[in-house]
Amino acid sequence: MSYDMGKNYKLTLFGQSHSQSIGVVIDGIQAGYEINYDLIRRNMYRRRPGKNKYSTPRKELDEFKIVSGEVDGVTCGAPICAIIENKDKKSKDYDDIRDKPRPSHSDYPAYVKYQGHNDIRGGGQFSGRMTAPMVIAGSIAEDLLQQRNVRVFSRVKQIGQAHDVEVDYSTIDLDRLEKLKNDDLPTLDDQAKAAMQEEILKVKEEEDSIGGIVEVVVLNMPVGYGQPRFHSVESQLASAIFSVPAVKGIEFGSGFKAAEMRGSEHNDPYYYDGDQVKTKTNNHGGVIGGLTSSMPIVFRVPVKPTSSIGKVQDTISLKNKTNTQLKIEGRHDPSIVPRAAVALEMVTAIAILDLLIEGDKER
Amino acid sequence: MSYDMGKNYKLTLFGQSHSQSIGVVIDGIQAGYEINYDLIRRNMYRRRPGKNKYSTPRKELDEFKIVSGEVDGVTCGAPICAIIENKDKKSKDYDDIRDKPRPSHSDYPAYVKYQGHNDIRGGGQFSGRMTAPMVIAGSIAEDLLQQRNVRVFSRVKQIGQAHDVEVDYSTIDLDRLEKLKNDDLPTLDDQAKAAMQEEILKVKEEEDSIGGIVEVVVLNMPVGYGQPRFHSVESQLASAIFSVPAVKGIEFGSGFKAAEMRGSEHNDPYYYDGDQVKTKTNNHGGVIGGLTSSMPIVFRVPVKPTSSIGKVQDTISLKNKTNTQLKIEGRHDPSIVPRAAVALEMVTAIAILDLLIEGDKER
Amino acid sequence: MSYDMGKNYKLTLFGQSHSQSIGVVIDGIQAGYEINYDLIRRNMYRRRPGKNKYSTPRKELDEFKIVSGEVDGVTCGAPICAIIENKDKKSKDYDDIRDKPRPSHSDYPAYVKYQGHNDIRGGGQFSGRMTAPMVIAGSIAEDLLQQRNVRVFSRVKQIGQAHDVEVDYSTIDLDRLEKLKNDDLPTLDDQAKAAMQEEILKVKEEEDSIGGIVEVVVLNMPVGYGQPRFHSVESQLASAIFSVPAVKGIEFGSGFKAAEMRGSEHNDPYYYDGDQVKTKTNNHGGVIGGLTSSMPIVFRVPVKPTSSIGKVQDTISLKNKTNTQLKIEGRHDPSIVPRAAVALEMVTAIAILDLLIEGDKER
Amino acid sequence: MSYDMGKNYKLTLFGQSHSQSIGVVIDGIQAGYEINYDLIRRNMYRRRPGKNKYSTPRKELDEFKIVSGEVDGVTCGAPICAIIENKDKKSKDYDDIRDKPRPSHSDYPAYVKYQGHNDIRGGGQFSGRMTAPMVIAGSIAEDLLQQRNVRVFSRVKQIGQAHDVEVDYSTIDLDRLEKLKNDDLPTLDDQAKAAMQEEILKVKEEEDSIGGIVEVVVLNMPVGYGQPRFHSVESQLASAIFSVPAVKGIEFGSGFKAAEMRGSEHNDPYYYDGDQVKTKTNNHGGVIGGLTSSMPIVFRVPVKPTSSIGKVQDTISLKNKTNTQLKIEGRHDPSIVPRAAVALEMVTAIAILDLLIEGDKER
Repeated sequence: MSYDMGKNYKLTLFGQSHSQSIGVVIDGIQAGYEINYDLIRRNMYRRRPGKNKYSTPRKELDEFKIVSGEVDGVTCGAPICAIIENKDKKSKDYDDIRDKPRPSHSDYPAYVKYQGHNDIRGGGQFSGRMTAPMVIAGSIAEDLLQQRNVRVFSRVKQIGQAHDVEVDYSTIDLDRLEKLKNDDLPTLDDQAKAAMQEEILKVKEEEDSIGGIVEVVVLNMPVGYGQPRFHSVESQLASAIFSVPAVKGIEFGSGFKAAEMRGSEHNDPYYYDGDQVKTKTNNHGGVIGGLTSSMPIVFRVPVKPTSSIGKVQDTISLKNKTNTQLKIEGRHDPSIVPRAAVALEMVTAIAILDLLIEGDKER
Repeated sequence: MSYDMGKNYKLTLFGQSHSQSIGVVIDGIQAGYEINYDLIRRNMYRRRPGKNKYSTPRKELDEFKIVSGEVDGVTCGAPICAIIENKDKKSKDYDDIRDKPRPSHSDYPAYVKYQGHNDIRGGGQFSGRMTAPMVIAGSIAEDLLQQRNVRVFSRVKQIGQAHDVEVDYSTIDLDRLEKLKNDDLPTLDDQAKAAMQEEILKVKEEEDSIGGIVEVVVLNMPVGYGQPRFHSVESQLASAIFSVPAVKGIEFGSGFKAAEMRGSEHNDPYYYDGDQVKTKTNNHGGVIGGLTSSMPIVFRVPVKPTSSIGKVQDTISLKNKTNTQLKIEGRHDPSIVPRAAVALEMVTAIAILDLLIEGDKER
Repeated sequence: MSYDMGKNYKLTLFGQSHSQSIGVVIDGIQAGYEINYDLIRRNMYRRRPGKNKYSTPRKELDEFKIVSGEVDGVTCGAPICAIIENKDKKSKDYDDIRDKPRPSHSDYPAYVKYQGHNDIRGGGQFSGRMTAPMVIAGSIAEDLLQQRNVRVFSRVKQIGQAHDVEVDYSTIDLDRLEKLKNDDLPTLDDQAKAAMQEEILKVKEEEDSIGGIVEVVVLNMPVGYGQPRFHSVESQLASAIFSVPAVKGIEFGSGFKAAEMRGSEHNDPYYYDGDQVKTKTNNHGGVIGGLTSSMPIVFRVPVKPTSSIGKVQDTISLKNKTNTQLKIEGRHDPSIVPRAAVALEMVTAIAILDLLIEGDKER
Repeated sequence: MSYDMGKNYKLTLFGQSHSQSIGVVIDGIQAGYEINYDLIRRNMYRRRPGKNKYSTPRKELDEFKIVSGEVDGVTCGAPICAIIENKDKKSKDYDDIRDKPRPSHSDYPAYVKYQGHNDIRGGGQFSGRMTAPMVIAGSIAEDLLQQRNVRVFSRVKQIGQAHDVEVDYSTIDLDRLEKLKNDDLPTLDDQAKAAMQEEILKVKEEEDSIGGIVEVVVLNMPVGYGQPRFHSVESQLASAIFSVPAVKGIEFGSGFKAAEMRGSEHNDPYYYDGDQVKTKTNNHGGVIGGLTSSMPIVFRVPVKPTSSIGKVQDTISLKNKTNTQLKIEGRHDPSIVPRAAVALEMVTAIAILDLLIEGDKER
């Protein structure tokens, strides 16, 4: 039971990297919504690999069709099912990987969980490819959020030693954020971007990979949404965020820096900005006591270096029960971080919409 | 809908800081389990404030009774309800706090969410006091886990500038971990503990507070539990962890350090240790692809400095719609980190038991 | 996992017939609702046994207290926990029943399910006594429904050979229905009531019991609530209704009579009554395609004769693995139907409120 | 949120009568199960209309493909998605029906619920056609149940005035039940079948329709499965059963007859049949206290006469807000009962498998 997400805007994901099709069923969209195909396509393009030298040259066309839930492009209250056919699957030999689990891939735990029956081809149900249908669901969520002026943005905050700039999201010019949506390596600072590209090309040459950090911000979320305790905004967002492969953590607002801070410094004083209640600082990251505060929701997510690398690695042979070595063939993203940024933005939009609807019904 | 947690070992929490009682209903314990009252009491004691000069002198006796679900101390299959009466509630005046929301407390978002009807006394349903019934549920979970040799430990990894030592949990002597359970400030290194105590006393003198980091480890979790995608081990643990007040993030294994690492360095090579599959390093933190790997599950959680401080703070008056100031009376934990460690251990045990039962039924 | 009900108005039940306390946690009540203690007490009184010669002389005082979720009688957004202490429990010997399962009681299946650890005293978690906390939750639901003019009524339609009259709920005088709420044996016709009393006294004399039928009606439910398919109004109501002990079925509108009807006769033609859409007949029973139609929701529920009877019965000895006989001591309801009517009204109110909130959030 | 069913064997349905495709996602099948395509096809054929003069001549080919969740016909642990393309949809004009809601169809409540955006073509998401993907999920459930010797059968018990015979399922020859699976009008008695066919042809001539009763039986269900209270076997089965269109009720064992019975007559005495615990009668219908008793689970379901009839009917014009008349064109099932029997068998298998897995994990 692992492929459903959300209570009010509810997804059910299906497919494996090399199954006939992959897709998503979305329940909970009001009848009468006109599907924004354009936004879906734009976000699908952002996620797509093979566009430049910083990502894998592997192509995924990701043509999708919506086969239910709408009449002439307008939702009818029935669930939407969106399907992407898996064309041009390589009939490559996976016997080697089945025997020799790739380090830091799901191969070995999946082998045990599914007693050897897991779909090993392309990573099966664990594949990053499964974020493609998430983009469809996320784009619809973004569109529905935007109708209420709630906006979600993501950027690459760090790759290796290269860091993007710090900003105050409560005063930032919206245009700077909009530009992130058209950027293959979305940063606010151009020099930072250049430094990141250099980091990526360096590891690519060495058939290695590099990690990074994605920062996500949600603007204009109204105050008092979310729940105390188990269904806090942080609980719901974190749960969603960890569904994206390669994520190693999440921190809100001050995050790990809070460990060295004092209360007098960490507390965010309230003030009236005209009629609006704001805080002078945003160490809380837009969420207090599990509830939204009306300040920007800000969180950062470390993304590990791509596990698939060209270098020879130590591993085991499950068949022979011996230690051995493995060399992974094929070409891979030298850094998955820029594409992870899109996926993280998408699941954020989905989770935020879900808790927005949840909160609405309590009013 | 915010007070239930888990699908297989399922909790429903009730109460506010100053309601007549607080408690928890636990469903999903097999009939025939003999309740380990002793363990519950020991963990209740660990969580309790007022034991020493490093925590608030406020007393909470936390006498609990189990009013259903058992016959002569043995579970009968019906849900357990455990109740703690709130004795000696202060009839203090809360009008000031209702008007002037305390910075970085839930007061303001709760005021909006509940349209002024939230229970402001002692923090109401947002109070850290609500972790007391969680300790009851967590202790039972720990006991049920221990029957299967799965163990959960927590320690204070950092307070302010003071850091506890790094260790390799796959080789550590179990006795060193057991000692943590009898320690008010659980660290592996005594010098670190002394330095932390110093940090705490320093801020206490200044009527301020200080944050820190808790590290939690789960040992002997069998391989292949958890789920890919939305119900990954990390998703479920993170969701649980963020239900504890003051938590600002979570990172597994390498965590945020992964941002600076290369794949060749981050990947954890497999090897056979006799019959057992292990990894040479544990950057993955015991979870790969959302599934347990059999290596120790290790995560760290930053805890913010206590929001209630004695210093005068800027805030607003909701009544007058003006900016104003607030001084919070009463005595508070100069650092909530040591007590948060207990709460975090408890919710971890609950979440781990839940996904252990989930996984069992798939076998 | 069997003690929670509802998604929006959500209950968690706890307790056994002879546990220290029984009770219910209710989540999903908006902050600011003033609890109608008076209505709760009136409904508790209706459910109570021992009031007259038609029910068991066993007394249940059912004094309840609400220990959380409110401040000065007004809800604060935290879950309500209502507790009833089990006073005056008899320390009777249950060894005989544990060995010899009572026919048509849960004893034998519970023995197997809980491996002999189930609480046998008074029926444990299966006891009709567990409907007492349901009355608390149901009364609050009724009160919240009434604020929206939605009303729930129940009556005894049949006991043995005695039948109450047929009525058209779309035109009935509301006063006739209101009177049902003050009636220990709620019928619309006095002669029918007298005949039913006779049936009950007859079986009582013979130490036997008798079954019957309860009819429930929901008035003024707005159109278009509920869901197609799995969460239809009928699915949700039926699921709730079968949680009441002794229920053997449910039928909506025409019910089993539909088997002999033709479409031309069964179809309910629409017409405008002023601005309002109505149907000339109500064979559909207020629900079409899983959705409310705005016509009265009408359903009938057969209730089996009380299983506990004074007569000697054949059964088995689990210990000896032999056939044997059993005589159940104590006094029992000669017909549980009148008290079941109250419980059925309560779970109906709970289920209706739940789907009303669900529908609201879709608008 | 209406298209998901089950917790352990979990379905998500999608599609409308005339959407591009309809289908179902199934989560919770263990990896390593070989899909029984043959059984799926046989059950699809049983459900299919147009096979004989007793059902509508409308053809539905119902070719399905499974696009995920398997490798070479064996499940891999990922959810199965089964898709049926809607070919040959008629581009008929639905404007008339949109304005004039058909009596006892979902048209009017759906119009209000979805604010006029519901898919009116062929009944949209309310269509009986949506039972086709249910057959896929139900067939897999039947196959998984049969691996554990649990069997589900359905038959037409009544159509109009024609009744099939009463039988004792605890002693019936299994072959008689197996034959039901190859029968377009599944009855145990041939004369009864002939009488039913006569009833159907009679109403068909008159452009009318007729209702009936389906009886379902589950054999060899082990004792002690299910739950007390809200998730009783009856609650779960009833909830599932009411997802099938045209269902007006459900009764277990004695059902509505219990109203006239005495306890001494209704109670089912236990006895040992060798090592096995059985009851002499089965008025309880295989479920006591919400739990299975090991006796056959028996329930009956009234099915209303098809709402679509050729006769002119009274209705309203939503546009003009006036009373008017409607004549439904096209050909329809004179009795939906025989095809409903298949759908009811399918949802029973799904619900039974779900609670079997639920119970397993408690052991």
